Amino acid sequence: MGNSFGQLFRVTTFGESHGAGVGAVIDGCPPGVPLAAADIQPWLDRRRPGQSALATPRDEADAVEILSGVFDGRTTGTPIALLARNNNARSGDYDNLRDTYRPSHADFTYDAKYGFRDYRGGGRASARETIGRVAAGAVAAKVLAVLLPALEIRAYVESVQDIAMPPHDTFPTLAEVDASPVRCPDPAAAALMAARIAAARDAGDSVGGVIRCRVRGAPAGLGEPVFDRLEADLAKAMLSIPASKGFEIGSGFAGVLLAGSAHNDAFVVHDGKVCAETNRSGGVQGGISNGAEVFFRTAFKPVATISLPQRTVDKSGAEVLLAARGRHDPCVLPRAVPIIEAMTALVFLDHFLRDHAQNHSTSSALFSAT
Amino acid sequence: MGNSFGQLFRVTTFGESHGAGVGAVIDGCPPGVPLAAADIQPWLDRRRPGQSALATPRDEADAVEILSGVFDGRTTGTPIALLARNNNARSGDYDNLRDTYRPSHADFTYDAKYGFRDYRGGGRASARETIGRVAAGAVAAKVLAVLLPALEIRAYVESVQDIAMPPHDTFPTLAEVDASPVRCPDPAAAALMAARIAAARDAGDSVGGVIRCRVRGAPAGLGEPVFDRLEADLAKAMLSIPASKGFEIGSGFAGVLLAGSAHNDAFVVHDGKVCAETNRSGGVQGGISNGAEVFFRTAFKPVATISLPQRTVDKSGAEVLLAARGRHDPCVLPRAVPIIEAMTALVFLDHFLRDHAQNHSTSSALFSAT
Amino acid sequence: MGNSFGQLFRVTTFGESHGAGVGAVIDGCPPGVPLAAADIQPWLDRRRPGQSALATPRDEADAVEILSGVFDGRTTGTPIALLARNNNARSGDYDNLRDTYRPSHADFTYDAKYGFRDYRGGGRASARETIGRVAAGAVAAKVLAVLLPALEIRAYVESVQDIAMPPHDTFPTLAEVDASPVRCPDPAAAALMAARIAAARDAGDSVGGVIRCRVRGAPAGLGEPVFDRLEADLAKAMLSIPASKGFEIGSGFAGVLLAGSAHNDAFVVHDGKVCAETNRSGGVQGGISNGAEVFFRTAFKPVATISLPQRTVDKSGAEVLLAARGRHDPCVLPRAVPIIEAMTALVFLDHFLRDHAQNHSTSSALFSAT
Amino acid sequence: MGNSFGQLFRVTTFGESHGAGVGAVIDGCPPGVPLAAADIQPWLDRRRPGQSALATPRDEADAVEILSGVFDGRTTGTPIALLARNNNARSGDYDNLRDTYRPSHADFTYDAKYGFRDYRGGGRASARETIGRVAAGAVAAKVLAVLLPALEIRAYVESVQDIAMPPHDTFPTLAEVDASPVRCPDPAAAALMAARIAAARDAGDSVGGVIRCRVRGAPAGLGEPVFDRLEADLAKAMLSIPASKGFEIGSGFAGVLLAGSAHNDAFVVHDGKVCAETNRSGGVQGGISNGAEVFFRTAFKPVATISLPQRTVDKSGAEVLLAARGRHDPCVLPRAVPIIEAMTALVFLDHFLRDHAQNHSTSSALFSAT
Repeated sequence: MGNSFGQLFRVTTFGESHGAGVGAVIDGCPPGVPLAAADIQPWLDRRRPGQSALATPRDEADAVEILSGVFDGRTTGTPIALLARNNNARSGDYDNLRDTYRPSHADFTYDAKYGFRDYRGGGRASARETIGRVAAGAVAAKVLAVLLPALEIRAYVESVQDIAMPPHDTFPTLAEVDASPVRCPDPAAAALMAARIAAARDAGDSVGGVIRCRVRGAPAGLGEPVFDRLEADLAKAMLSIPASKGFEIGSGFAGVLLAGSAHNDAFVVHDGKVCAETNRSGGVQGGISNGAEVFFRTAFKPVATISLPQRTVDKSGAEVLLAARGRHDPCVLPRAVPIIEAMTALVFLDHFLRDHAQNHSTSSALFSAT
Repeated sequence: MGNSFGQLFRVTTFGESHGAGVGAVIDGCPPGVPLAAADIQPWLDRRRPGQSALATPRDEADAVEILSGVFDGRTTGTPIALLARNNNARSGDYDNLRDTYRPSHADFTYDAKYGFRDYRGGGRASARETIGRVAAGAVAAKVLAVLLPALEIRAYVESVQDIAMPPHDTFPTLAEVDASPVRCPDPAAAALMAARIAAARDAGDSVGGVIRCRVRGAPAGLGEPVFDRLEADLAKAMLSIPASKGFEIGSGFAGVLLAGSAHNDAFVVHDGKVCAETNRSGGVQGGISNGAEVFFRTAFKPVATISLPQRTVDKSGAEVLLAARGRHDPCVLPRAVPIIEAMTALVFLDHFLRDHAQNHSTSSALFSAT
Repeated sequence: MGNSFGQLFRVTTFGESHGAGVGAVIDGCPPGVPLAAADIQPWLDRRRPGQSALATPRDEADAVEILSGVFDGRTTGTPIALLARNNNARSGDYDNLRDTYRPSHADFTYDAKYGFRDYRGGGRASARETIGRVAAGAVAAKVLAVLLPALEIRAYVESVQDIAMPPHDTFPTLAEVDASPVRCPDPAAAALMAARIAAARDAGDSVGGVIRCRVRGAPAGLGEPVFDRLEADLAKAMLSIPASKGFEIGSGFAGVLLAGSAHNDAFVVHDGKVCAETNRSGGVQGGISNGAEVFFRTAFKPVATISLPQRTVDKSGAEVLLAARGRHDPCVLPRAVPIIEAMTALVFLDHFLRDHAQNHSTSSALFSAT
Repeated sequence: MGNSFGQLFRVTTFGESHGAGVGAVIDGCPPGVPLAAADIQPWLDRRRPGQSALATPRDEADAVEILSGVFDGRTTGTPIALLARNNNARSGDYDNLRDTYRPSHADFTYDAKYGFRDYRGGGRASARETIGRVAAGAVAAKVLAVLLPALEIRAYVESVQDIAMPPHDTFPTLAEVDASPVRCPDPAAAALMAARIAAARDAGDSVGGVIRCRVRGAPAGLGEPVFDRLEADLAKAMLSIPASKGFEIGSGFAGVLLAGSAHNDAFVVHDGKVCAETNRSGGVQGGISNGAEVFFRTAFKPVATISLPQRTVDKSGAEVLLAARGRHDPCVLPRAVPIIEAMTALVFLDHFLRDHAQNHSTSSALFSAT
């Protein structure tokens, strides 16, 4: 009972790794927006395995089908159902996991919660679940392109373990991000990261890192205090992604080192518009966007599935020595980039619609008259 | 439209700093739980200003009244409305803020979103808003004491700027935390933090820091994948607190430095129970609690309100030199400790009820029979 | 956990008959709308007891206080908390009800559900609960006056037992409705109804009837298929009112007697606008308003509280002969009129905002361009 | 944004008449419940067209596929996605409806709301939409069979136009209901109804009627005052079904004719249990089930689609003479019976889970101890 996201642009995802398929239903999509499967597929292609030697060699086509909600190439305002069939399911790879609890995986907790579980390929806890979100995020991006054409969302890998790229002053293009399979727009850092990931792969181990996401062109006014602040919903969105362990916005954890006088963002007037001179706030103040760039960072732990043998136990409590046989990624970050962009698109679109409903239904004359 | 929190134990807060009062309505509270205003008041007393020389000298009684939902000393299952009247409102302190946008405050964004704002004392964006959540959290804690008597929630200040306490191996008692006005259970670190806060106060400046929260005694099984993971809802809860800028659970941002083989928590059997030998997961795996201690950290920026003069602009775009005249805290952290504990109680109770509804309504015979 | 109503203009009510007070919190109110307690009070005055000899002689002032969400006479967009203190609580009247289950009351079911109950004056099941909804409905009406100035909502008593007014061709004014204490705009029928109610009162008995509600000036397009159809939400709203037992829209139950060829509403063009020539649909087609008058009828059973002695049992199962001693209405309908108008206002405003969010955020250019 | 139903057992439906398919996603299903497509198919078979000469001759297999949420023949607690492909779509039948507004259909209102529509076969407004609800209701019925094995839900056609069956004292079996294609358990009335429907069909016309639904074996305690009363959610569920125009529970509209003394249901003790001697309340008091049979009636207007020529207009405002060419039912009632049972199952299961979460999480010791 936690498989829906959003209040007005509401996404419900479904599907297990080795069931019939995975997908999503979107309720509340504005009508009239051009949409085809071809708009969604590139997002899934960025997310899918087998893109490079750095990722799992599984070849999953992840072809998406639009089952409803689109007519004559445009959204109709009715629910949009999206389905990607599972077609490369080698369930046999997972027979040994029926009774075994993989370290730092969801095997034990799903059993504890639901009494039993679909153990094939992680079942619902598989990263394959994210196909539904990414497909829905692709639709959100199409709608945002109509509603907020100036908005741009760009995520990229900022660090892998201790290898961190230098600060990137410009807003990177999609091409710059995707230039390397690591999805780090700094070529030198990307090369080091790629080597690190390859080394982990060869050692049967895995690595983690941090992804930065930047959003520019968002209007001031998005975010719903006091609980549904923009940063609160972004934090929830990011922590809902498998393997994420941390979130920070603006100055984040480093900002605690500064005094208030050094941290505050002074307001100035540029081109007749009030704006903040600096941006330690990360584009949000009091839970509401202020018109500046919104940026935040998400930490991903190293992938739990590794080939190195690990001690664990099975259901009966017996000790087991486990070595993953299935296909897996040594580093989740490159494939997490489109997931983060998708979740960010969902948050921004939902907040745009919420703000629009409450604050842009009354005539502006209402205010000028008083 | 973002003033409610929780799905089954649902809290809606209301109130501005200088209106008639602040409070909350709780819908979905289990019936029969002993409850009186005296159960809530200590939580508000820990949150209120004027507790020590380190906090604002405002003396706000914050006396809570239970308006409904309690009869003969027990909750009835109907909505519990809680009200704390505002009674020390020196609105005059804020007249100069009618048209001025304080740096890193919500003045500008509230204007941008709603068209105008209650500028007195920050209005809805005032930390005074948190009274409603803390009162509701106190009720949640009473209910948890019945439903999950083994559960304990303890938050404390772990760092102020660069002053960090050493790791605390034992689970600190409430008395240890409250022994110092800083709410750091390490006496030596607490003394250094107190001096740093006092120095900031004397300089007309402010400081931030990090609060750790620890939860022990939670059962395995809490958390609702894929979006309402336990850590996702905790992240949202924490990022919804004023001045928070970051959240991490378990190994968090530091965990990205480790290889998977070093990060994974091996399962072992202790006293016939499956449990994790280490706890870099922070008590959650796949979005669900695993029975281990749940711990997480929240970063708070330095308070935006400072006495030092700051450049900013007013509504008309004119430059203004602003120095806060109102009463304010040089450091929000000591008072944020009960807020974090309250939000944590709300998350755990709500997730307990959600898990109970779905997974503990069917007879266990259902599973043993198959 | 069922004390909230609405998705975007969301009302949560609280309070028991003999607790500290009753009220509501509204989240999602558009900002900038003029609002004062004086706008709400007339609604409560129409609802309150003691208005005429036909109603209970209890004199409850039901004075409403706005606790939050309004500044300088206008809504701020933050939660609006409304409170009416209880001040005429003669709890002693109800001591004999502690253990007795009144026939057709909620005493037994509240005990069955929650384990115990606040038995004073019906507790949460008292009609006094409706103060919160009526106050919230008054706020909704103020907002609708800004958003949809052509919209008019008018409810009136159409029948008391078998006394039915003739069809009213014109849209009655508020003055016509309130001309008689029965709130029936047909003077002859109203006189008969008043006599019938007085006779029931004198006999220690009670009577029921039907209220018609008419809404004109609603735009086409309100209602959210497939579950949140306009008529579905109206039905829910009406059946949530104490003592209601039936709802019908348009031709309703009588419409089943007609053939489709006689029932269908032909479309025609009037003044260049597509509209239905007849209105057996009741202003809704496919769950969405079509621009015609929306009208529906709600059935109210006779009040359960009567002075005549009745057989029943107490908690221990012992037989009891019960005669109501408290103050009560012989007929709930005159006071239910503003309750129905309030619930109707809540439904229409919520649906306006929902429609606005999804369907009026995209530029109309989107459609013309294709 | 109204395509979800339920709070804890939450169903989201999707699909248009002539798109790729229709279906539903269920979130919150308790785990461990035996489930296969074969459990759902009989419900769809009762709903589908072509069952008898009284229904449309369209032959739609409506074969359901379970895409997710079931493993090893049992529900896993994760989302259950259900899909029925559309496979008999003669879209050409509807080309003439692209620009024409059929009387009393949703063509005009969908255009008014969304700007354009999928006009093929009614699109989302087609009764084909109800496949998703019926499939979800079938799942709910399977869960109820585990949670509340004594619960029985039975709907049947009580009247067609002015032909009404006599009161049925016993609780009819499924076989009795399905003995006639009309789904009226009284053979004599069923024969008259069948003749009336056939006559309407032959005349190119249509008829409406009333369906009664009865629920026995429900425990006392279901229903969530004050807004989510059991009867309020039932009313909403029924009014959300296409072509429904009225709802009444217990004594309903007829009950308004009685005096309170004649209407009240006296409590008595039977077999040591408190129960109501009569049942004019219809099994609900104060919005909560009292353990008696819950019964209610739903009115369905005559089907809007008829073969007789009708006047209407097209988009341009030009007058059109329209005669339906597509395949259609002369009477919706026989096929609406399983739809009503499905919606009723959804309401009861959702309310069981809600009640369970709030009121059965605390130990009963809590109450006995006080």
